This record gives sequence, C-alpha cells and structure tokens, in this order.
Amino acid sequence: MKRKCFESDACPVARSLEAVGDVWSLLIVREAFLGKRRFGEFQKSLGVAKNILTVRLRKLVEFAVLEQVPATDGSAYQEYTLTEKGRELYLVLIALRQWSLTCDDETEYVLCDRRDGKPVKPLAFHAHDGRELTPNEVELVPAKSAARKVLGQHQAR
Amino acid sequence: MKRKCFESDACPVARSLEAVGDVWSLLIVREAFLGKRRFGEFQKSLGVAKNILTVRLRKLVEFAVLEQVPATDGSAYQEYTLTEKGRELYLVLIALRQWSLTCDDETEYVLCDRRDGKPVKPLAFHAHDGRELTPNEVELVPAKSAARKVLGQHQAR
Repeated sequence: MKRKCFESDACPVARSLEAVGDVWSLLIVREAFLGKRRFGEFQKSLGVAKNILTVRLRKLVEFAVLEQVPATDGSAYQEYTLTEKGRELYLVLIALRQWSLTCDDETEYVLCDRRDGKPVKPLAFHAHDGRELTPNEVELVPAKSAARKVLGQHQAR
Repeated sequence: MKRKCFESDACPVARSLEAVGDVWSLLIVREAFLGKRRFGEFQKSLGVAKNILTVRLRKLVEFAVLEQVPATDGSAYQEYTLTEKGRELYLVLIALRQWSLTCDDETEYVLCDRRDGKPVKPLAFHAHDGRELTPNEVELVPAKSAARKVLGQHQAR
C-alpha cells in the first residue's frame, strides 16, 4: 500500500518530510555534505542496498535537493551534488544532531566557527531583538492574526 | 529485509534518525505538540493506518519521545504525551518547517514570541560572541582537536 503523499500538504513540516523524511535520504544528504558524489561512494559509506539508493537518489533529485552533474574527472560517471536548497538542509541535520546529543552526549565532533575555531552556540530560538527564547516561549500563530495582532481570527483580505 | 539499525551509530544524526527518521513519527510528534493525546485522535488527524500508527507509537515510547499516561478523564484509555526529550524536538520540527518555507513560502502560520506576539528570527547558527554565521562558516571538528586547536589530529588522552 502506498503511503499518503504530503507534497502538497498545507503544513510545511509535512511537505519537508515528503522530500527528506526517511533515514536514508537524510543520511545521503549528510554524505553529500561530507563530499561524497558518486553512487558507489554513497553505497559504500552507507552500506545501503543499491535498489534503495537508486530510488532515494532519484527522489532527492526530483525534489531538487541534489542535482546530477558530469563527473569531475571527465569519466562517464554521473555525480550528485547538493543544490542550494539541499545545502539549506545543513541546519536541519545539525538540529537533529543537537537533539540526539541532548539525550546521550556521545560525539567525537564539535560544531565550530571556521574563522576562529571556537565552538558555536547551540541552535536556539531568538526574538526579534535577539533575546534567546525557549520552545515554550514561542508559538505558531495564523499569519493574518500575527499581522493584525488579532489572535485566532481568520478574515479574507 | 530489515533495514540496518543506527541506534548505536557513531554519528548522532544517524542515531536521531533511528528514533524519528520517518514521516509518520515526526508527524505524530507534531500532532502531540498540537495537543493530540489519544490513538484515535492521532489516527483521525493523520489519516494513518492503525497498524502503522501502533508500531510508530510503540517506537516513540521505546525511544522516550512519548510516554504513556492514564487518560485525563479517568477513562480506561491510554494517552500519549511528549517527554522532555520529545519536547526538545520542537526545534527540529521548526528547522524542517523553515527549510520547506525557504523553498516554497506557502504557510498560514508565523512563529511568534508569546510575550509580545512578534515574529521570531529564523533559526541560524551563532558564534560564541553572538555573530550570526552561515552554514558555510561552520564546520564539524574532532572534539579533541577543537579543544587543542590541533585540527585533524586524534590523540589518546
């Protein structure tokens, strides 16, 4: 049975999950960030079945997360690189990583500022004036209400 | 064929995906944030098959994202609530949401500061001194190297 498709869902979380909401897709994206470009490289580093990798790569290209480019060495191989949209997933990967580390704290790597080599701050919400906010201090508000500060009221423009 | 398990993987991104790396799990978490607590509520709002929902709920409880609690109305129903670890996923959901919106900009909701109702800043990386950093300005560095500022060198303590 085919799963319900969320590509046109009203919720942007659901739409994002349609594109990258499975273990392999996000691990392929992680490998692409680590410099992997070829089918064989993804296959070797992830230990994923070829048929699964084929489907996932096709889907990531379809969703414009990856794009196919000619091989850098001039050979007949196809290579995959992150698109600009794909590179925007870095923050998502780091958010997942940070979540994992709040639970178990097991890592050999630290996210650092390239400029001075110092660890960056954990991802957090920030108010318009820069105050750091906890998840309990933020809420999703209907756009029209936010603009008008009339909470809960949906009016046609 | 059962997929490789990443629960003990060295990479925290892979470990997080083992817990929540599928469409349904993260949508169940989203619904829990929206106040859903019962099997029937999740089933109705997501339109997910009961057998799939059963497996996903069990897994989310196993990974301590959700916990089972007695029904608030004293009935025999079991309810599910987010644990503290589960609530930490809010930032992940918002990161996914933000990624989706950089691509298509279709949303009816805005993330706001509860205190003053003003939209919060987009999630971004911040250096130790508060400077905002692009994804290109950060990098994952081996922890020991970061501590010693000797990049690329792994030494036993």
